[in-house]
Amino acid sequence: MNKRLKIKKPRIPKLPKIKRAHKIIQNDVPGTLTYTGFKEQKHVSVELIDYSPNTYTAITVDDVSKAFNKQLPGDISWINVNGLSQIDQIEKLGQHYNLHPLILEDIVDTNQRPKIDEYPDYLFIVFKMLYYDEHGTFMNEHISLVLGENFLITFQEADGDVFDSLRQRIANAKGRVRNAGSDYLMFAIMDAVVDHYFTLIEAMSDRIESLEDILFANTADQDITQDIQELKREILRLRKAVFPFREVVNRLEKIDSTLIDEKTITYIRDLYDHVTQVTDSIDIYREMTWGLMDMYMTTISNKMNEVMKVLTIMASIFIPLTFMAGIYGMNFDYIPELHFKYGYFYLWGAMIAVFIGLLYYFKRKKWL
Amino acid sequence: MNKRLKIKKPRIPKLPKIKRAHKIIQNDVPGTLTYTGFKEQKHVSVELIDYSPNTYTAITVDDVSKAFNKQLPGDISWINVNGLSQIDQIEKLGQHYNLHPLILEDIVDTNQRPKIDEYPDYLFIVFKMLYYDEHGTFMNEHISLVLGENFLITFQEADGDVFDSLRQRIANAKGRVRNAGSDYLMFAIMDAVVDHYFTLIEAMSDRIESLEDILFANTADQDITQDIQELKREILRLRKAVFPFREVVNRLEKIDSTLIDEKTITYIRDLYDHVTQVTDSIDIYREMTWGLMDMYMTTISNKMNEVMKVLTIMASIFIPLTFMAGIYGMNFDYIPELHFKYGYFYLWGAMIAVFIGLLYYFKRKKWL
Amino acid sequence: MNKRLKIKKPRIPKLPKIKRAHKIIQNDVPGTLTYTGFKEQKHVSVELIDYSPNTYTAITVDDVSKAFNKQLPGDISWINVNGLSQIDQIEKLGQHYNLHPLILEDIVDTNQRPKIDEYPDYLFIVFKMLYYDEHGTFMNEHISLVLGENFLITFQEADGDVFDSLRQRIANAKGRVRNAGSDYLMFAIMDAVVDHYFTLIEAMSDRIESLEDILFANTADQDITQDIQELKREILRLRKAVFPFREVVNRLEKIDSTLIDEKTITYIRDLYDHVTQVTDSIDIYREMTWGLMDMYMTTISNKMNEVMKVLTIMASIFIPLTFMAGIYGMNFDYIPELHFKYGYFYLWGAMIAVFIGLLYYFKRKKWL
Amino acid sequence: MNKRLKIKKPRIPKLPKIKRAHKIIQNDVPGTLTYTGFKEQKHVSVELIDYSPNTYTAITVDDVSKAFNKQLPGDISWINVNGLSQIDQIEKLGQHYNLHPLILEDIVDTNQRPKIDEYPDYLFIVFKMLYYDEHGTFMNEHISLVLGENFLITFQEADGDVFDSLRQRIANAKGRVRNAGSDYLMFAIMDAVVDHYFTLIEAMSDRIESLEDILFANTADQDITQDIQELKREILRLRKAVFPFREVVNRLEKIDSTLIDEKTITYIRDLYDHVTQVTDSIDIYREMTWGLMDMYMTTISNKMNEVMKVLTIMASIFIPLTFMAGIYGMNFDYIPELHFKYGYFYLWGAMIAVFIGLLYYFKRKKWL
Amino acid sequence: MNKRLKIKKPRIPKLPKIKRAHKIIQNDVPGTLTYTGFKEQKHVSVELIDYSPNTYTAITVDDVSKAFNKQLPGDISWINVNGLSQIDQIEKLGQHYNLHPLILEDIVDTNQRPKIDEYPDYLFIVFKMLYYDEHGTFMNEHISLVLGENFLITFQEADGDVFDSLRQRIANAKGRVRNAGSDYLMFAIMDAVVDHYFTLIEAMSDRIESLEDILFANTADQDITQDIQELKREILRLRKAVFPFREVVNRLEKIDSTLIDEKTITYIRDLYDHVTQVTDSIDIYREMTWGLMDMYMTTISNKMNEVMKVLTIMASIFIPLTFMAGIYGMNFDYIPELHFKYGYFYLWGAMIAVFIGLLYYFKRKKWL
Repeated sequence: MNKRLKIKKPRIPKLPKIKRAHKIIQNDVPGTLTYTGFKEQKHVSVELIDYSPNTYTAITVDDVSKAFNKQLPGDISWINVNGLSQIDQIEKLGQHYNLHPLILEDIVDTNQRPKIDEYPDYLFIVFKMLYYDEHGTFMNEHISLVLGENFLITFQEADGDVFDSLRQRIANAKGRVRNAGSDYLMFAIMDAVVDHYFTLIEAMSDRIESLEDILFANTADQDITQDIQELKREILRLRKAVFPFREVVNRLEKIDSTLIDEKTITYIRDLYDHVTQVTDSIDIYREMTWGLMDMYMTTISNKMNEVMKVLTIMASIFIPLTFMAGIYGMNFDYIPELHFKYGYFYLWGAMIAVFIGLLYYFKRKKWL
Repeated sequence: MNKRLKIKKPRIPKLPKIKRAHKIIQNDVPGTLTYTGFKEQKHVSVELIDYSPNTYTAITVDDVSKAFNKQLPGDISWINVNGLSQIDQIEKLGQHYNLHPLILEDIVDTNQRPKIDEYPDYLFIVFKMLYYDEHGTFMNEHISLVLGENFLITFQEADGDVFDSLRQRIANAKGRVRNAGSDYLMFAIMDAVVDHYFTLIEAMSDRIESLEDILFANTADQDITQDIQELKREILRLRKAVFPFREVVNRLEKIDSTLIDEKTITYIRDLYDHVTQVTDSIDIYREMTWGLMDMYMTTISNKMNEVMKVLTIMASIFIPLTFMAGIYGMNFDYIPELHFKYGYFYLWGAMIAVFIGLLYYFKRKKWL
Repeated sequence: MNKRLKIKKPRIPKLPKIKRAHKIIQNDVPGTLTYTGFKEQKHVSVELIDYSPNTYTAITVDDVSKAFNKQLPGDISWINVNGLSQIDQIEKLGQHYNLHPLILEDIVDTNQRPKIDEYPDYLFIVFKMLYYDEHGTFMNEHISLVLGENFLITFQEADGDVFDSLRQRIANAKGRVRNAGSDYLMFAIMDAVVDHYFTLIEAMSDRIESLEDILFANTADQDITQDIQELKREILRLRKAVFPFREVVNRLEKIDSTLIDEKTITYIRDLYDHVTQVTDSIDIYREMTWGLMDMYMTTISNKMNEVMKVLTIMASIFIPLTFMAGIYGMNFDYIPELHFKYGYFYLWGAMIAVFIGLLYYFKRKKWL
Repeated sequence: MNKRLKIKKPRIPKLPKIKRAHKIIQNDVPGTLTYTGFKEQKHVSVELIDYSPNTYTAITVDDVSKAFNKQLPGDISWINVNGLSQIDQIEKLGQHYNLHPLILEDIVDTNQRPKIDEYPDYLFIVFKMLYYDEHGTFMNEHISLVLGENFLITFQEADGDVFDSLRQRIANAKGRVRNAGSDYLMFAIMDAVVDHYFTLIEAMSDRIESLEDILFANTADQDITQDIQELKREILRLRKAVFPFREVVNRLEKIDSTLIDEKTITYIRDLYDHVTQVTDSIDIYREMTWGLMDMYMTTISNKMNEVMKVLTIMASIFIPLTFMAGIYGMNFDYIPELHFKYGYFYLWGAMIAVFIGLLYYFKRKKWL
Repeated sequence: MNKRLKIKKPRIPKLPKIKRAHKIIQNDVPGTLTYTGFKEQKHVSVELIDYSPNTYTAITVDDVSKAFNKQLPGDISWINVNGLSQIDQIEKLGQHYNLHPLILEDIVDTNQRPKIDEYPDYLFIVFKMLYYDEHGTFMNEHISLVLGENFLITFQEADGDVFDSLRQRIANAKGRVRNAGSDYLMFAIMDAVVDHYFTLIEAMSDRIESLEDILFANTADQDITQDIQELKREILRLRKAVFPFREVVNRLEKIDSTLIDEKTITYIRDLYDHVTQVTDSIDIYREMTWGLMDMYMTTISNKMNEVMKVLTIMASIFIPLTFMAGIYGMNFDYIPELHFKYGYFYLWGAMIAVFIGLLYYFKRKKWL
């Protein structure tokens, strides 16, 4: 995942269409598990990280049941499940940890917007991991998180995430994480996701700037509307993912739960500030993007103006001259000028005078 | 009804006009029953489903009075009335269940926006079932629901609905419904309606995409404004139906009523999340649709630019050439060039030079 | 009044200007009575309806003092005053019923926006009766209402209102009104006014549809901007009248006053739903109307496009042909083609080829 | 001041620029007095009106100290200070009445937006008096007001105000003012200012109507954008002055202060209604003004359309005709038609046929 | 810094691009210090001002440790740290004053939006100092502030600020500052920053006016869209800095902290008024700027109209005249007019008549 992060500036033209993010399945029995995403993965891979200030083990298994009862007493256990299409695995895990059926439904329902639910024994949080994949496509991955007394379960649609740096910090006992509880681990995960939102914000800022440069350089062609519309759509999707998430963090800050330590609240408050920065930026880039369309319209109009000017100048100069030539191409029996000795040259003189007069007129109008 | 659901992608052009949804009847005595919809149905059909964990009966009768007193003790009874134009039937039912006159008025008033009213013995909820009918027309059906201790009455404008899957779940004792109370049945009905809203959202998304494709392919003709305006209108109507319904669900979640079990509240909270997803999507599609009009404007302007360019190039090239030919069509007694041996060919040379010069100029301007 | 209601669809073009609704009178002593409307009426007409479940009398007098002390004990008395320009009459009534000077000022101040004021002995409500008059002009009549223990006073600017149906219900003891108190009468009056708002909403919907039809039929001329602007203005005025009225009804629903019976609250809640429907519709029609202007812009642009195309085709085809003819109209001593046997016909061949080539080009561009 | 009020309809074109309303002075010590307005007045003029139900004296002095200790016991004293550029005078007054340094700063800071500050012994209110001066320029005068137990001090930037009618009412013991306390005097002053806002609203309404008339009459020239932009700016400035003032009045209504009598609250509530009417109107006129720009755009487009049509018709008709004439001006040795007996007249026939055909075509297109 | 303030009116065209304000650093351990700004400064410079009503010392050192323990008992100590790129210095200071790791992170994180955090022993506030630098570039400097019992620490990205006037006031014991606590010093610093916001507001107002003048003078060229877009962007950035700062001041006013004296609250309330004035102005200038784009569009359209008119007039006059000349250039054997004695002059007469007729027509259309 970390590698993908490097692709900060996707080439603007010809972004692949954002695929519809979800399948629509209807008339289900409420509480039925149906995976609605597109990332079918044949086997779930379950990652189990068990740690305390002094101990650390990390294993990866291919069936959730193999991850049960491995937790040492006093340790914090992080169970990370990749792959939501294996419904039976999710159900097994739900039974083991005694999760409400609606939670299981939300874990596999990629339509679910960010939210937080409080249950007596655990907190359930849904949010979105956003990134550009290796093709520069805007991806939207559904993440759920169950916080218990001394464990944390995360659910992702597929392998690959933004948590590698966090894993290393746990392995190397760097930072506060090994000395804190599962609530701090939860914060660290959400913090990694929010940190990543900034990358997206940056990429958008870069794209807006490229589009502006194209517009200012006056080399815009029609494809630019498509890019602007694409950008609008991404910003709208980003808003849809981030704005409810801010509410989630806000509620988390104010929550009255024994699961969350007072010290961690300070960190969550900080996280809230970060998410607010993201939402502020989204709104600014939104306005900028909407403004791009206006700029494009004026660019088109300016171009048309230029085309019109050339036409007007050419036509206005040569139409009267042609008329003058036409006059002396007539076959009247008696046209005195035709017989003037220098008639032809007089006419040229008159034509040049008209030509210069019109040029001067257009010059004064600043059309030349 | 289920079959109609398949028509997810109505052909975009030439959607029939949305008929005005209601008749306007004025200066009624408050509490008077007047059906304001257009779905006149000669006979009501009353469906009676009576169930408990162990028992199940379902009958359909053509007069409400035949449905009274059929409920077994301890059972949950779902009375579904199709057809609101038979006022006397509604009144009979109102008397039997002792419903407030204003409730009866709201049941037949298809103008009524989604709302929830609490009465000592029952809850009254109004909402809208939305779907595309077999002709691809956007339909808006008025549904009311009365929740009592152990019964639930639903009122629909006409036969056909989105509850077939729910009926089967009751018949086959699938899911939680047979083991839960009338409040869960109410939830299941509202859930089916909300699930169906997603279909509409999908259809809109598809139509926006088709319109965008048309715009990007640059094959838009005038009819597209009509489609966009149509789409705007549908989105506005959808908003009008869904946004107040979200408030209804929100209030239902917070209600303090003995009619609603604590366990069901969890399900209603989930329903609230779903409705919020619908409203979020509506707002996004709304912005996208508004943006389509801007895109169409730039498309028109770009086309005009192209037309202008062809005209400018043709006129600018041939007008000076015609002038040159006109010069030598004059009948002056003395025009020296006319008597040059290769005068005609010199002129052709000059004309070709002008031609190439102008072509080069337009090339440099990127008009060619 | 009822007859005017029939004029649901005013002819769109040439609506008379909405006259400024109020005179502006400045620097008054607060509490001074000044009628600010335009409906000067020489005599007030005072209608007195006195009723109980068993009794009913209705008289009309031309001086308020004649209406005092006619109320039978135990009866409900409705005093309806038509004509606000006779200040002394209003003052007499104010003294008799001991009304606060500011109330009297608000009664005659047609500028006053809808509001509700609570006084120890009575409630004072201001709202607006809106209708199209016989000329299709949008009219805005100022109505005030004083609710006392067993009486209700209404003030209107002029004769003619929307309460005829209510009067008949009282006379014929139809509906609940004869058996309920003055608070229900107040509700019935407000209900009649709100019912009438729907007529306006309908008329607006019709006008928007006519304008859309005109726009789609592509027969729009310049007058349409005037109609759209007119419509915008009416919608804005409607908003100004209805939105504060919704607040009034909302506050009325929550009021803690002995004047209003618990049973009537249910009706007022229903009224609130109706007003909300009106405000919802206003906002939708507002967006539709704003959209009309955009549609008109694209219509204009499309027309210009069409004009440009005809010009481009005509000019692009005939300008080169004329050039060809000009070539062979030159008088050079030696132009070989002129002496070819079939030169003239060869040229025609060439011209026809150019003609067909250009036609084909425009065909391919879809301009034909 | 009253005379200026008559100038309700300033001539629209060429309004003088609104001068920047304030000097910007930076890095002051907080609490330093600096007059930031432009109305330098060499001497302050202090008006002292002392009254009770039975007594009344009014004097004008040129130094604040001369106004001290003139108040009779039991009287209400209104001290009106005109001219804020004499800082020392303001300071003297501040010392005498023991005003907080920040209050003194706000009195002379014309940048200060409308606000209300509560102090233990007095209320401090800032608002704006708006009017068109004799040149039709939109003026914005800064007014401050200190309400004490039995005195009221008002501060204005310069001589001339909208309170003449109020002064007369005090002098002539007309209305409630002589019998009420200093709180009612405060209300009367604010009421006079708000009454005056209506005049501005009217003038704006008139200007919008004139602009609309110009647009509908299709005689708009470029200057109109300037007028619209000017109007937008004035509306924005009006909003800036009136919207915070509404908040001030709202807070005043709800204030818990011994300085304000219960009876006066009723009047303040009424004042709040009036200010709300002003803000409602501002928002309506704002939308109307924004709409004017759209209308102007369609006017321009319509004009361009008309210009295009004339060009298209003239060119399309005469270009083919000229081509026909060009054909028979060629000098081929053999052009059979030239030798037809009536060739010339046949050609005229053909030309007239083309002419009529094109006219008919344009007629059918409704371009003629 | 004070000198830069003089640059109130930056030359409009060709403002350098606003550089992206921050580096994006990802996946940090929360609480890690990383300076994200661009103002790398090799050494921090620490300014220490120690004062009481009677004492005053000011020293500048190049290492924070040299500033510790210099505070006299009973004195107020202001430690101003310039330069955030020396992380170790910030950490040393953090240890000495026992600051929370997240505070240290926010001090160096220039991305951080304005905020206030309460800790048991101190208040932490972040805000932005905005100014145009000597090149007219819009600069955004990150400032943090820690308020303790009797000390105040400020952190700036680089040397140079807007506090020189404040320093002098402390040195010269001018104003209230020497007699008040550290809370008043905090207020004075924030006040200086807000005072400076007004300069920016002024500069924006000037730029909008210049742009309007250019638009009205009709000399706008394409660069103006770039200027308008630039202005939009600056206004959006200003909003992003000032709006959250208003919230900070608002919360500061309502804070319940022993660190802030009751007397200072009055000053903070005043500060809040000032910030609100800034935000009001930003919103007005925002609307004005958005309006500029519309004005530019109409300017372009008007220009195109003018170009079209010249073309239409020239073409419409000379095309029919050329046709007339073409007629008599034909070589038919028999064209009677050619042999009229004054045929040539008759034709000139006809041509002049056509010429005058068309001129008259255009005159009447007001195109001339």
